Amino acid sequence: MDDTFLQRLAELAVGTGANVQPDQILAVTAEPSSAPLVHAVAEAAYRRGARFVDPFYFDPSVKRMRLEHAPEETLDFVPPWYGKRLLALGEHDAALITLAPVTPPGSLAGIDPARAGKDGLPFLKETFTVINDRAISWAVVPSPTEGWARAMYPDEQPEEALDRLGRDLEHVLRLGEPDPPAAWEARMDALEEAAARMNERRFDALHFVGPGTDLTVGLLPTSTWMAARMRTRRGQVHVANIPSEEIATAPDPQRTDGVVRATKPLEVGGALVDGLRVRFEGGRAVEIDAEANAEALRGRTAVDEGAARLGEVALVDRESRIGAMDTIFMNTLLDENAASHLALGNAYAISAGEEDQDRINKSSIHVDFMIGSDEVDVTGVSRDGDRVPVLRGGAWQV
Amino acid sequence: MDDTFLQRLAELAVGTGANVQPDQILAVTAEPSSAPLVHAVAEAAYRRGARFVDPFYFDPSVKRMRLEHAPEETLDFVPPWYGKRLLALGEHDAALITLAPVTPPGSLAGIDPARAGKDGLPFLKETFTVINDRAISWAVVPSPTEGWARAMYPDEQPEEALDRLGRDLEHVLRLGEPDPPAAWEARMDALEEAAARMNERRFDALHFVGPGTDLTVGLLPTSTWMAARMRTRRGQVHVANIPSEEIATAPDPQRTDGVVRATKPLEVGGALVDGLRVRFEGGRAVEIDAEANAEALRGRTAVDEGAARLGEVALVDRESRIGAMDTIFMNTLLDENAASHLALGNAYAISAGEEDQDRINKSSIHVDFMIGSDEVDVTGVSRDGDRVPVLRGGAWQV
Repeated sequence: MDDTFLQRLAELAVGTGANVQPDQILAVTAEPSSAPLVHAVAEAAYRRGARFVDPFYFDPSVKRMRLEHAPEETLDFVPPWYGKRLLALGEHDAALITLAPVTPPGSLAGIDPARAGKDGLPFLKETFTVINDRAISWAVVPSPTEGWARAMYPDEQPEEALDRLGRDLEHVLRLGEPDPPAAWEARMDALEEAAARMNERRFDALHFVGPGTDLTVGLLPTSTWMAARMRTRRGQVHVANIPSEEIATAPDPQRTDGVVRATKPLEVGGALVDGLRVRFEGGRAVEIDAEANAEALRGRTAVDEGAARLGEVALVDRESRIGAMDTIFMNTLLDENAASHLALGNAYAISAGEEDQDRINKSSIHVDFMIGSDEVDVTGVSRDGDRVPVLRGGAWQV
Repeated sequence: MDDTFLQRLAELAVGTGANVQPDQILAVTAEPSSAPLVHAVAEAAYRRGARFVDPFYFDPSVKRMRLEHAPEETLDFVPPWYGKRLLALGEHDAALITLAPVTPPGSLAGIDPARAGKDGLPFLKETFTVINDRAISWAVVPSPTEGWARAMYPDEQPEEALDRLGRDLEHVLRLGEPDPPAAWEARMDALEEAAARMNERRFDALHFVGPGTDLTVGLLPTSTWMAARMRTRRGQVHVANIPSEEIATAPDPQRTDGVVRATKPLEVGGALVDGLRVRFEGGRAVEIDAEANAEALRGRTAVDEGAARLGEVALVDRESRIGAMDTIFMNTLLDENAASHLALGNAYAISAGEEDQDRINKSSIHVDFMIGSDEVDVTGVSRDGDRVPVLRGGAWQV
């Protein structure tokens, strides 16, 4: 990483991402070792006229100590002021940048996954409120840290590992392009066009078929496909994830059936769930198995009724720079954009129309897992039962 | 510093200091570079059965960027969720450990002191509410960081500077004693005895005379001398400052007259105010001059009516290990315990009786400055005008 890398990343996060406006408050969520990028983000935001930059450093080492020592019945305690702060940021129409990962992969290694599954922090259920109210201009961007680099490249020296992670991120963030913001606007335009074509089709369901996967995901009459470029209630355009290569919508939480094998590992509260297999019946995940850390995901899906049902289905084409790399970042922000994916838990209200707001899934969790690859065919099923190819070999067919 | 230094310091902070109880919430305020001590504190607290440890990392680099870039009229903005979090900690009868300094000395070098004076963060006016309600078991302890060590020992290599600061702190924290908690309990016993003798005298005023100082500080009928060992409303004993070498009370905010010369520099929001001279008339600081950064203090004393009046007068004897060292720590927690001192701004409610609660000073600030030395005589003046020596050459006379 050259000296300007963090500055260029910060400019992308503050500009294209959260689109921080003069006099706006910017909150930044990060782990303490991301302090150098927090500083670059704060500098960029104050230069754009931000009123106040409020860093919230979440400390994964302290989370680990809690999971090691605290009584089990206290592990789901969330200090009420955490959620109230987030709601207050919404009341102020603030911006929010999250530097991922906040809990680096492997940081909870050796912790009992059943205990780990009870502590969802730093995730807060109030996140859905401020997102669904379109109150805040939010963006999640990656932050290269030594801990993350070590998990990805354990055989390299720390400096070389960090350098490799930095180069990976520079590529997938399109920071090597002559004009990275323009490159992202163009990619968002293309994804919004794909979303518009899917919305015209109004499929009744999607059928995923591939190695270990034969899954039908029912859609609602008003399920609305969207890219990551959004607009707040006061009209502020922002890109919620950078990178983002997906279009997504809220499925019918009662109509997912079949089996699905995850095509990438996923991180649940710092534990890496590898080789995940899930069986759905009537929309519910009735069997969750994995080669490692299945308990972490089972614990999360047990927190409430909606936690075992789908809140999101997302399609990713082969234009994705992440998918093309075949690198596993061990972090959902990056890995979910390698491949089509599902999310257990809460749906985004903006993904469905007014008349289906009561039907989309409600939960205090939202956990993405990747199910797509060039070997997984995606087929749309119309209300009349017609079958229309959507993705074949990772390329759009609609 | 040997490997156990941070652990021993953390044990003192969590045990003797905040006296963290099973199932209690512990909040920790620190700058990001204090993370190693935050971790030692969290570990000690969870081992004692804490319910949740909530670190609040305040970032002095981001504060500096704000003061460099943000519009002047926004500099007194405090996000309302900061104060609400503190009040919520009070509602939960939480513990609170602050690792000082949160803004290291010199971190605001070159910033316009008038602008710096407008931004009191990380200090919050709600601090007085939770302290006066005796809602939280709080303790302020020092945290040795490279930034602080560099400011104190600018001519040393970073590692040697940090090592010297560590040795200084080990000494003043009595961590070299065979049983540091017992040493602190004994010192608190002695200070409480001095406070009891002063309370028996019920002086009408104190008269300070020394080089550049001829100041009379009026006392209230119920002004109550206290040491740093306190008791919360639910009976939890805690030591609010470690180290602490003082006894203190709330003076009459209307009856301070004369001139006073500070005997140590003081830090105001990261700026070092050196060579301070203050003239009081009718309780009000009507002239504030200094060799450096007087504007920072003038800015703070202008925030409200009570900010230019006294909320505390404190006496320190020559038993103080800090006073004996003649080292300037450039931080109030340490330096105020070298010498007798005054504080501009808010008084602690516990320092006066019920009938004087309306008379003690009210303000959103509390800024200590040191006025004592072996050359400053302190004399008590009784209601009949009798003059009684209190401190001579730094030794108790009462």
